[in-house]
Amino acid sequence: MYRIGVDIGGSKIAVGIVSEEMKLVSKKSQPFPHTGNPKDSVQTIQSLISGLLTENKLDIRDAACIGLAVPGSIDYDRGVVIDAHNLDYHDFPLCQLVGDLFPGRVVHVENDANAAALAEYYCGAFRGCSSGLLITIGTGIGGGLMLDGKIFIGGRKNGFEFGHAILVFGGEPCTCGQLGCIEAYCSAAALVREGRKAASAHHESMMFQRAQGDLARINAKLVMDCAREGDKVAGEIYQQYTSYLGATACTAIALFDPEIIAFGGGVSNDGEFLLSPIREYASKFAFFKKHAKIVTAEMKNDAGIVGAAMLHLQR
Amino acid sequence: MYRIGVDIGGSKIAVGIVSEEMKLVSKKSQPFPHTGNPKDSVQTIQSLISGLLTENKLDIRDAACIGLAVPGSIDYDRGVVIDAHNLDYHDFPLCQLVGDLFPGRVVHVENDANAAALAEYYCGAFRGCSSGLLITIGTGIGGGLMLDGKIFIGGRKNGFEFGHAILVFGGEPCTCGQLGCIEAYCSAAALVREGRKAASAHHESMMFQRAQGDLARINAKLVMDCAREGDKVAGEIYQQYTSYLGATACTAIALFDPEIIAFGGGVSNDGEFLLSPIREYASKFAFFKKHAKIVTAEMKNDAGIVGAAMLHLQR
Repeated sequence: MYRIGVDIGGSKIAVGIVSEEMKLVSKKSQPFPHTGNPKDSVQTIQSLISGLLTENKLDIRDAACIGLAVPGSIDYDRGVVIDAHNLDYHDFPLCQLVGDLFPGRVVHVENDANAAALAEYYCGAFRGCSSGLLITIGTGIGGGLMLDGKIFIGGRKNGFEFGHAILVFGGEPCTCGQLGCIEAYCSAAALVREGRKAASAHHESMMFQRAQGDLARINAKLVMDCAREGDKVAGEIYQQYTSYLGATACTAIALFDPEIIAFGGGVSNDGEFLLSPIREYASKFAFFKKHAKIVTAEMKNDAGIVGAAMLHLQR
Repeated sequence: MYRIGVDIGGSKIAVGIVSEEMKLVSKKSQPFPHTGNPKDSVQTIQSLISGLLTENKLDIRDAACIGLAVPGSIDYDRGVVIDAHNLDYHDFPLCQLVGDLFPGRVVHVENDANAAALAEYYCGAFRGCSSGLLITIGTGIGGGLMLDGKIFIGGRKNGFEFGHAILVFGGEPCTCGQLGCIEAYCSAAALVREGRKAASAHHESMMFQRAQGDLARINAKLVMDCAREGDKVAGEIYQQYTSYLGATACTAIALFDPEIIAFGGGVSNDGEFLLSPIREYASKFAFFKKHAKIVTAEMKNDAGIVGAAMLHLQR
């Protein structure tokens, strides 16, 4: 029995075949069809799956399950996507629609941050651990938490919104309507915001120079590059940013005390340049002196596909 | 079968009999013997239990269990108190020592904040819920979390340190060594600190007048009394304090999404005067618009005894 994992994102839909040995053996993707009719995306999913099965000479009847990962909130009992704004899914019966196209197949859906944590748990950085927190740094902050080998989806099973715990009381406004959320300080967007603010006040900075005075050209990579190359202004911004991440790790340690904390997303590709200051902060401040290992995520871009494919092991 | 619950605090040890119907039918207490030898407290526990059994004409062989609640960290596998500073327990084999005095009885130990949450779960504010967070406001902040009907003790089973999540990055120093913990802003001690600071800057304030200019006389009750009676200075402090509590509730809602959040401890005796501003804050800001009910704890001073007595239902 193999498994099918589908990672549905605002830019593309990626489908993969995951073997019994938990290896991603084949994958393909297509742009997400932003046609205004979300059902069109289900057609894309069907054609991607069918194409992949043909290429790999697989029979759908041998698929243990079809797992779906979406950037949104899930009604787990009904298999419905409550809201996935980037996909225009609202109260969208995704499991049923996909199931209708592949009769007899079990279909599960999960939030993409949770699916990514599941991928780390079965195949990546969390192997050998029963608990782990994956913090994915992107435009926002994705949090996926494994506790006792299970995805944690909150007391009322509405999901786990790690990025929306308060880090700076009364601080920067967050997209969710709160002030000072973890997301408002730890996302790549927050690093860019602070980088642009500092560059605008320091035209002599490497950041401002490299962006040729165009603040819109300053992205997370540019801030990090300038910090690494010794620019004082970027260095201070980056140090502050990693302190926010360190404090976030400390909050996670006090509340969840997981065996491992992994950072994912583009910003984490820098490895030790990101991890060292976070580890230093945690070793200085964390409530538990012996605490979680702090590492980078391993599954990278395949996390959603692989995690989705593993969902049947959790249900 | 009845149950024996023991609440071991720095000032007193309280023992109670809890019936099969989960009622506290009898209790007695003695001061904690601060003799320098923590084993003396085990003698006190024995004499309290024996006295209570005699008074109630009960046979120890009919006790379903002896449960112990301590203000400290627990090694659950070994039944050992790792550290309970107020009791001078350090790597202290409490379960074994109590068990030796009552051969054949099952003995369990739990952190007192967790035991209190368990009491709310079986007998108090959390009845009918499978998840709930108890926030006990005292000198510090005690947090006890029930998830899926189980006490949550962290991924590595070292405990749940709700008071030591970060609320104000880089803020007030906490006793734990971090800066800006929930405890450093939401404890009764934090309210007193801010009250004294404000009174010292405003000698015209009701707080300063009532304390007759002696800042040491300003306690949490005085700040709250003055706020309730319209003192502007105390009112501002109290409003800020309840905002911190509101933000703390929002963090809990984003991370745990429990069915219910209960506030306990002396400060919560004021009921709506405390709850109304917290509810207002949460209804304005919380990530989940439909979120946990926010109430006061019900078990009050008996929470430790009753929760300890219920421990055998969890193990």
